[in-house]
Amino acid sequence: MEHIENDNKYEGLAVNKGVAQPPAVNPYLNKIRKVRRRQYTAAEYTEHILKGDITVLSQAVTLVESNLPDHQILAQEVIEKCLPYAGSSVRVGITGVPGSGKSTSIDAFGLHVLKKGGKLAVLAIDPSSELSKGSILGDKTRMEKLSVADNAFIRPSPSAGSLGGVARKTRETIVLCEAAGFDNIFVETVGVGQSETAVHSMVDFFLLIQLAGTGDELQGIKRGIMEMADGIVINKADGSNIEKAKLAQAHFRNALHLFPPTPSGWIPQVLTYSGYYEIGIGEVWNMIDEYIAFVKKNGYFEHKRQEQAKYWMLETINDQLKSHFYQNSEIVSLLQEKENRVLHSIQSPFTAAKEVLDFYFGKIL
Amino acid sequence: MEHIENDNKYEGLAVNKGVAQPPAVNPYLNKIRKVRRRQYTAAEYTEHILKGDITVLSQAVTLVESNLPDHQILAQEVIEKCLPYAGSSVRVGITGVPGSGKSTSIDAFGLHVLKKGGKLAVLAIDPSSELSKGSILGDKTRMEKLSVADNAFIRPSPSAGSLGGVARKTRETIVLCEAAGFDNIFVETVGVGQSETAVHSMVDFFLLIQLAGTGDELQGIKRGIMEMADGIVINKADGSNIEKAKLAQAHFRNALHLFPPTPSGWIPQVLTYSGYYEIGIGEVWNMIDEYIAFVKKNGYFEHKRQEQAKYWMLETINDQLKSHFYQNSEIVSLLQEKENRVLHSIQSPFTAAKEVLDFYFGKIL
Repeated sequence: MEHIENDNKYEGLAVNKGVAQPPAVNPYLNKIRKVRRRQYTAAEYTEHILKGDITVLSQAVTLVESNLPDHQILAQEVIEKCLPYAGSSVRVGITGVPGSGKSTSIDAFGLHVLKKGGKLAVLAIDPSSELSKGSILGDKTRMEKLSVADNAFIRPSPSAGSLGGVARKTRETIVLCEAAGFDNIFVETVGVGQSETAVHSMVDFFLLIQLAGTGDELQGIKRGIMEMADGIVINKADGSNIEKAKLAQAHFRNALHLFPPTPSGWIPQVLTYSGYYEIGIGEVWNMIDEYIAFVKKNGYFEHKRQEQAKYWMLETINDQLKSHFYQNSEIVSLLQEKENRVLHSIQSPFTAAKEVLDFYFGKIL
Repeated sequence: MEHIENDNKYEGLAVNKGVAQPPAVNPYLNKIRKVRRRQYTAAEYTEHILKGDITVLSQAVTLVESNLPDHQILAQEVIEKCLPYAGSSVRVGITGVPGSGKSTSIDAFGLHVLKKGGKLAVLAIDPSSELSKGSILGDKTRMEKLSVADNAFIRPSPSAGSLGGVARKTRETIVLCEAAGFDNIFVETVGVGQSETAVHSMVDFFLLIQLAGTGDELQGIKRGIMEMADGIVINKADGSNIEKAKLAQAHFRNALHLFPPTPSGWIPQVLTYSGYYEIGIGEVWNMIDEYIAFVKKNGYFEHKRQEQAKYWMLETINDQLKSHFYQNSEIVSLLQEKENRVLHSIQSPFTAAKEVLDFYFGKIL
């Protein structure tokens, strides 16, 4: 019985366990670091972030990503202090399956943005790192030009954790980056999982990178993603591939024409470009600028931002209500038993659900 | 304080309040009915249903739709007794916006099915009846031929209630109809709301009715529905409209080609037909037969049915966890307050969520 009570004890938002860091090459490194880096207060963090200090921004993001309760509390304080200074960037979600040339494209798009004189943060959401034990996205080495560019801040996906947890950390990192004066935020993700909905719910523009071809390239992409896109861009439109890319463009345009209108009133565009040869990069970005101007004028920009803020509050609540229930060990075994009865048509899904709920609320009320 | 405790008191699955019936023309009708119809036991209901008694089936469905606790208990007993005899029908979800000719099409498809010697039940999910104070779908008068056909059972959408509640009632009605020997079930819905996901989660084949034209007809349809469809059929392919319909068919085929493959391995088909002139009805139905044979062979049919049963159990649980939370009056006002803080960037969505959850679990634990 005591066991159950423990199970149900609410200890604040569940924080997902992290993955152990690989051993440092220099075993004394941590000691040295401890001596060198003293912990800032929330006010100090904020002060430095607002000045655009990238080293402190980086440390604050590490704090956001940390699963230690002390770090979490401090991180939330910093975020609250930064909030009034956040919100003024253009947030672009970029998705595409592996092989679509996402990194090369982000490199090219990023340089284009920086040439216009802005500051750019490249973040990522990659819950698949749960399996790969580390993030594969936002890797600096794959963005050759951006990684050495001034005014660019590249941060890999928070490693490991549930999608909700990873997405939350990325969303909070956006706040910090904006407070630090970054006026362009890219959020990168791979178009194969659930993470696109999360990304879609934190960006202003959702860009889908596709390839021309027989349709084989689409095999990996998830259904429903195409309908989320505010723009579809067909990569590798260069050399002998141009004609194929133009054909794909026509196909996608026709397909989008069959879709119902977007809630923003914007008609999603289809463009071709080459990330590697840097062809058509300006045109892609003009589309995004045009979109932003369009939705700022019709009020959808602000509306969407507000809906997103509400969404994240309610999503967090719903996630937490569920994990409180589904992580209870007695519920787990009861559910297993009920599921068997349902699958063998002994019990209807609804009475099964009712009995499990009766048990849950009977225990905790 | 006592007020709060009441708020949180768990009293079984929440049942949505129904809408009052319009006054009967004959004020004594209810009295007469009471005398005439005695209440069957669950065993008696089941016995009659298994014999295919449509009058008793109809009464049992009324029981399922009733919100009286006694009726609910009896209904669940009947459903459980019928469960072992259910599951052997082909369940087809049919959606399309108003004006696409859904009723005429269902009339034609239904007659075709009946000609082959089966029995057909036409059900509906229409949560919009919440607003219209009564169901507009499954109306017998709109299905002229089916309404007078033997072996056809037409039942309007359960009136009023949340989508979850309405969908649950329709899903339970499927069980009763199958036990009564109906080997074809149509579930009709209007493609503009959330109800398609619910329908998609209780049928074997999801049919989307479209019209040829400039795309204006699509204005009303919800994004994401096209990707759910196992088949898209273009209505009103008759007379001078045939060419336009063929063109639309080509467009939709191209569009579907760009979509990622369906989990069933089935390639969604696009066909043209005319519900009114009964042209191409057989071809549409051959497609559905072909699909059923295909998924029965590759095992997806059974797999999907099992996933659906699990889905409904978990959906019911998740719905209920949420309504227990969101229907608490203190939570409602706290959420309102937090939402304001979030929308004015005073608080982050995550700390706002955390504080509301702390309050909730602090109260009920």
